Amino acid sequence: MHILIINGPNLNLLGKRETKIYGDVSFEEYLETLKQKFPHFTIDVYQSNLEGEIITCLQSELYDGYVLNAGGYTHTSVAIRDCIAAISTPVVEVHISNIAARESFRHESLLSPVCVGCVFGFGMKSYELAMQYFLLG
Amino acid sequence: MHILIINGPNLNLLGKRETKIYGDVSFEEYLETLKQKFPHFTIDVYQSNLEGEIITCLQSELYDGYVLNAGGYTHTSVAIRDCIAAISTPVVEVHISNIAARESFRHESLLSPVCVGCVFGFGMKSYELAMQYFLLG
Amino acid sequence: MHILIINGPNLNLLGKRETKIYGDVSFEEYLETLKQKFPHFTIDVYQSNLEGEIITCLQSELYDGYVLNAGGYTHTSVAIRDCIAAISTPVVEVHISNIAARESFRHESLLSPVCVGCVFGFGMKSYELAMQYFLLG
Amino acid sequence: MHILIINGPNLNLLGKRETKIYGDVSFEEYLETLKQKFPHFTIDVYQSNLEGEIITCLQSELYDGYVLNAGGYTHTSVAIRDCIAAISTPVVEVHISNIAARESFRHESLLSPVCVGCVFGFGMKSYELAMQYFLLG
Amino acid sequence: MHILIINGPNLNLLGKRETKIYGDVSFEEYLETLKQKFPHFTIDVYQSNLEGEIITCLQSELYDGYVLNAGGYTHTSVAIRDCIAAISTPVVEVHISNIAARESFRHESLLSPVCVGCVFGFGMKSYELAMQYFLLG
Amino acid sequence: MHILIINGPNLNLLGKRETKIYGDVSFEEYLETLKQKFPHFTIDVYQSNLEGEIITCLQSELYDGYVLNAGGYTHTSVAIRDCIAAISTPVVEVHISNIAARESFRHESLLSPVCVGCVFGFGMKSYELAMQYFLLG
Amino acid sequence: MHILIINGPNLNLLGKRETKIYGDVSFEEYLETLKQKFPHFTIDVYQSNLEGEIITCLQSELYDGYVLNAGGYTHTSVAIRDCIAAISTPVVEVHISNIAARESFRHESLLSPVCVGCVFGFGMKSYELAMQYFLLG
Amino acid sequence: MHILIINGPNLNLLGKRETKIYGDVSFEEYLETLKQKFPHFTIDVYQSNLEGEIITCLQSELYDGYVLNAGGYTHTSVAIRDCIAAISTPVVEVHISNIAARESFRHESLLSPVCVGCVFGFGMKSYELAMQYFLLG
Amino acid sequence: MHILIINGPNLNLLGKRETKIYGDVSFEEYLETLKQKFPHFTIDVYQSNLEGEIITCLQSELYDGYVLNAGGYTHTSVAIRDCIAAISTPVVEVHISNIAARESFRHESLLSPVCVGCVFGFGMKSYELAMQYFLLG
Amino acid sequence: MHILIINGPNLNLLGKRETKIYGDVSFEEYLETLKQKFPHFTIDVYQSNLEGEIITCLQSELYDGYVLNAGGYTHTSVAIRDCIAAISTPVVEVHISNIAARESFRHESLLSPVCVGCVFGFGMKSYELAMQYFLLG
Amino acid sequence: MHILIINGPNLNLLGKRETKIYGDVSFEEYLETLKQKFPHFTIDVYQSNLEGEIITCLQSELYDGYVLNAGGYTHTSVAIRDCIAAISTPVVEVHISNIAARESFRHESLLSPVCVGCVFGFGMKSYELAMQYFLLG
Amino acid sequence: MHILIINGPNLNLLGKRETKIYGDVSFEEYLETLKQKFPHFTIDVYQSNLEGEIITCLQSELYDGYVLNAGGYTHTSVAIRDCIAAISTPVVEVHISNIAARESFRHESLLSPVCVGCVFGFGMKSYELAMQYFLLG
Repeated sequence: MHILIINGPNLNLLGKRETKIYGDVSFEEYLETLKQKFPHFTIDVYQSNLEGEIITCLQSELYDGYVLNAGGYTHTSVAIRDCIAAISTPVVEVHISNIAARESFRHESLLSPVCVGCVFGFGMKSYELAMQYFLLG
Repeated sequence: MHILIINGPNLNLLGKRETKIYGDVSFEEYLETLKQKFPHFTIDVYQSNLEGEIITCLQSELYDGYVLNAGGYTHTSVAIRDCIAAISTPVVEVHISNIAARESFRHESLLSPVCVGCVFGFGMKSYELAMQYFLLG
Repeated sequence: MHILIINGPNLNLLGKRETKIYGDVSFEEYLETLKQKFPHFTIDVYQSNLEGEIITCLQSELYDGYVLNAGGYTHTSVAIRDCIAAISTPVVEVHISNIAARESFRHESLLSPVCVGCVFGFGMKSYELAMQYFLLG
Repeated sequence: MHILIINGPNLNLLGKRETKIYGDVSFEEYLETLKQKFPHFTIDVYQSNLEGEIITCLQSELYDGYVLNAGGYTHTSVAIRDCIAAISTPVVEVHISNIAARESFRHESLLSPVCVGCVFGFGMKSYELAMQYFLLG
Repeated sequence: MHILIINGPNLNLLGKRETKIYGDVSFEEYLETLKQKFPHFTIDVYQSNLEGEIITCLQSELYDGYVLNAGGYTHTSVAIRDCIAAISTPVVEVHISNIAARESFRHESLLSPVCVGCVFGFGMKSYELAMQYFLLG
Repeated sequence: MHILIINGPNLNLLGKRETKIYGDVSFEEYLETLKQKFPHFTIDVYQSNLEGEIITCLQSELYDGYVLNAGGYTHTSVAIRDCIAAISTPVVEVHISNIAARESFRHESLLSPVCVGCVFGFGMKSYELAMQYFLLG
Repeated sequence: MHILIINGPNLNLLGKRETKIYGDVSFEEYLETLKQKFPHFTIDVYQSNLEGEIITCLQSELYDGYVLNAGGYTHTSVAIRDCIAAISTPVVEVHISNIAARESFRHESLLSPVCVGCVFGFGMKSYELAMQYFLLG
Repeated sequence: MHILIINGPNLNLLGKRETKIYGDVSFEEYLETLKQKFPHFTIDVYQSNLEGEIITCLQSELYDGYVLNAGGYTHTSVAIRDCIAAISTPVVEVHISNIAARESFRHESLLSPVCVGCVFGFGMKSYELAMQYFLLG
Repeated sequence: MHILIINGPNLNLLGKRETKIYGDVSFEEYLETLKQKFPHFTIDVYQSNLEGEIITCLQSELYDGYVLNAGGYTHTSVAIRDCIAAISTPVVEVHISNIAARESFRHESLLSPVCVGCVFGFGMKSYELAMQYFLLG
Repeated sequence: MHILIINGPNLNLLGKRETKIYGDVSFEEYLETLKQKFPHFTIDVYQSNLEGEIITCLQSELYDGYVLNAGGYTHTSVAIRDCIAAISTPVVEVHISNIAARESFRHESLLSPVCVGCVFGFGMKSYELAMQYFLLG
Repeated sequence: MHILIINGPNLNLLGKRETKIYGDVSFEEYLETLKQKFPHFTIDVYQSNLEGEIITCLQSELYDGYVLNAGGYTHTSVAIRDCIAAISTPVVEVHISNIAARESFRHESLLSPVCVGCVFGFGMKSYELAMQYFLLG
Repeated sequence: MHILIINGPNLNLLGKRETKIYGDVSFEEYLETLKQKFPHFTIDVYQSNLEGEIITCLQSELYDGYVLNAGGYTHTSVAIRDCIAAISTPVVEVHISNIAARESFRHESLLSPVCVGCVFGFGMKSYELAMQYFLLG
């Protein structure tokens, strides 16, 4: 099974900035751990700060599933939402922090209604939980 | 590790009612599958239709962790929220359906801000993803 | 035909308290009148102050129909709403007073959208009108 | 006892249009059934698409009671509301469909607070339930 | 100077209904008093329950000024507002009761922004104050 | 093909009032131009200031299509909306001015969701664009 | 009869500032005209920029009536409202400009519900119309 | 004089949980202090996590007065509000913390309008202040 | 211990105006009773109708504590709120009437979040309850 | 006359995805039809998923007119709105679907107030109607 | 050039209270620094806790420019806003703290729309930035 | 000291478009003036119409400070906000026009709470005031 993890704006800073909130592990390091936990999966990662590039990436549909952390676009992008609704590849939404416990503008995700489901609040481990969805059974 | 799954109102009807939304597997049957996937865990289940009984159950704190599907109380119970904030046992929130894709009064959970995190939209499999949180590493 | 009238919180005080609003007839007395008007029906009454007990009662589905006056839970209980949506027994919502003419938080009923219909404002007679729904024709 | 049923805009289309929602019985046909159920009543019907004509009709007060289905004016007419508040003939509000289960702008009725009470959701039978209010006892 | 007083829906009931709020003087009687106070004016009165007829009346523009009590249409009629904005005859808005002290949906008038000004709360005398606007000086 | 253009309240003033906004061409003059552009169509026009008359007109369904400029009723009439939803003749909504650039109460049309589509902001030419919808292909 | 006109903040600038909106007549000049129109009245004027001084002035109750233009405090002062509700001298509210046609925060007056009535939009002449209220008959 | 202190959900945890907010004194210990300060009173305590049990307790009316800390139900229970409005025993509302300084959903109490009054923010001492209400004079 | 009671706008009218709501005892008379109940306290009173003077008074900080009834400024004064937050003398908020049972604009106090706590609804006795806070123990 | 059609995010999927809503014709195919209907026009097409690229494209102003379908950016892009307001080339807004009949966040377009006008709901034909605007007369 | 700095309520406490937020430099000390940076300016300071006094001060217009920190009145004073709109002396608004990062009621300034511009968040240095506006060029 | 001025969408049009609002000086010309006023600073400029490119630019952190005019993204970009919160280089927000005096959707900046401070309304001079922040002292 081929899974693409798509990380939105600022997630390239993981492990370098705001380490109190997001921890001091970079996504590259974490990816190694993740790959070991899912040995039968091929896991790729795509990061972009541009809303439109994330859309283009989603549209390509070269994977069996997407794990999407859209960062700040989660709460503002009707365009990404429309894209997820248009494609047939399943998308699982993740957030590292507990977005319900932060500023009120982070409480509503425009993307959740068109994703399969959502996992948030478990730190980096949110990605791992999301990946479990693609396991058989 | 001892985990208690707490199911709120109407979740005793799983597998019998609204099977198009929730599937035709009862929670008892699903529990067997769950136990097999987490052989090193002791998993108990508590179901109640009463808000106050769920609070009393949470207060007992006899487990290492709770997986909580509070059903309709998710959106209305300040009292359960206060309880989760008061206790020290970690609580993971789950929902079977994609609550973000349903009626607007289901979009905001009063409980999420005081839980560790939240998993929703994966059908019965939401419980399994939530359980992963308690695995080491 | 077997009909269960379910009365929610504080409706055990009918005829004893706030008689200017609700009249000085207790529900027990009124029930006798009601039974005479529907001689071919078996009419039972269940009253509880507990939201969860009302849910449990609705779930039992031992009757052909429910007439439900959920009192204060009308405006706050997503859990009772979920229960009505889950069961197959038809539920008719009633209110003694004209809830649209009272405080604004009483204007919206969480239960109406999942009930067959609603009757309110006719005093005790609201129950009688609701019962008519179950008459043939 | 003389009762006037007042039907507002588009209710002349009953039985001809949107039959999935409103059924395929015209109001004229239904009226016959209704008259048979209330043999001691004189029942007349008035239909108009004009807000102002409904007001003029209500003002005439030539009946012992009105059963009013104001259609779309239910949610927009302060003028009909003022009229009902001004006259002394009792007015019972009815709706064929369950307005609480439809678009949000149909959830609030401007008329309910000044009517005796309201019956909605029982299809054509809503009229019959409303008529019961005028029966003695 | 020729002035037309336009009375909207239900104002034909003045002096007959809700006399506690509106007094027991009919508009016809009050009109005599008004004419005596403005001997150099020709004052006519037009009453209609129909929104569209009030518009047609305003469009005719056969008077030097209008005094308009639009009743319930005050708060709901964009169409009357558009008409007042379109014509060049000055319109003074009046209300008998203190609309700011009544239900919240009466607090905002759709018509005020396009009228010359507004007079409300002085009982029947509101018409007299409004008429003063048309006096020279 | 027979098309009826329905003009709502105050549109009889076109070309005479507020010419800066609406131009100085009366609808009668414009109609001639329109007919020349659609030589294979029979185009009739109906204008009324009364909400209920517009409903009655729509209900008659004697044409292959309606082009509707409901004027001020666009934003307030649930009754016209219900009528459009009930009939089977297609209705195209038009507005002469750019309603999105005017007062906020003009931004939402109650009618748009039940019309085929909407054309606004092109001055008189909005009618012509709307007519194009009925051309083949 | 003794009437006190109370002018709130910035009304001392009348005739000197924003003359396009408020005209170039100072209140002192206008007062002379006003006195001539009401020869049997004693009319005094009090102006203050301080909310609390206006309250103290109203509390003194040395007049038969107040004509109050509270300026900017109209929309923000619960304290002046409480004062008007507490005293027994009748208060008539006036505004020079048409407050309903200005910024939205000027549409609601906190004072109107506790005043006898309100007159706005007639320029300086608003004071004269307000004074008419105190004339007999 | 007999007073019943009713403590709602989670208040059984006082002194054990969240001691930074609520202090480390259990309610039992505090009760001793309270009894000494009011030697002429009989003071009982009732605690429940169940909304409906609190209602049943209030309905019994075996005391001269209630001091009620409804915990999380303060902000969600129309049913408890209805109960307080229905009974004749005076109820004084208390809160340990300053609810106005916490999350916005704690700012409005559904119970305050039907209680005698409210005391909040003084820590455990809030109960003592509330008790003072029942002292003579 | 030296306590200053600060009374805001219109509270100088206590006992003279609106006696049905506030009673017919002037604050001066009540003060005597209060002093007798707290014989070990020095109690002074300051009343002002001016928002800014109340601020200046609070800033002086010559007392061990303030009991503040800010009247109408309770709901509108960010400036008084800022002052209370800036000073170190504890401030207890009081209201004579049950502000939660009055108009909706009285439900939120801008001052409560920065005061120690709040006491309202007990009539004049609210001051006494507030004073208890300053007693030892 | 040179016209540029600008298609925003996901509109490159036309004819391939969600064909029930958008039809199974790709924009390239449709373009051929369009060109035939406007033989005297030069019509180009630009598609981008990036908000900023659409802005850059609009700024170039190499055409006599733009037909803009901004897709999801319609409801979120203040930046595109600012661009349309800044340039002098006329922009006509189009939408394929009836946006007023879809989710509420699609009801308001940030772009409409600065465009010439808007056409929506006519399927692919919306582009054709929009093009008509640029025809002479 | 003569500039008057106007400081509103509680700003006389600068350097004495809440030094963590506002620093421990009094405004008098800071003024010396400021004067040195603008040697060609005459800089005066006026501080008042009274809304009305600030208005009176602004009306005097004896300076070439005002730098205004209205403190808590920033968010509540329509009267100061009206004054700034009425006078011709330019007013620059300043705030020491970042008001956008504080409580939500501080996010909107009633004064900004009628000031030249606004500077906030730079600590005491906000005054210096504001002064720069009055420098030539 | 090295400062980067970042200009968002459409700011490349300065001096060419909407010159009445923004003046007829291009940013390049203005930059020369700016450099002369801050001779000891190195000032660079970066302009982009793409939200994501602005984020990437901010993340590079090669300067001692940023002066950011995010144009339309000011009000819609959670992603830029997250970036500013994540980096350690200080960011000063500027706007040329008085955003508080424009459309309501421009009143709230998503960026202000995470910037050092904000300067708006001074035309091009806003940049100069913002630069002053980085001067010593």
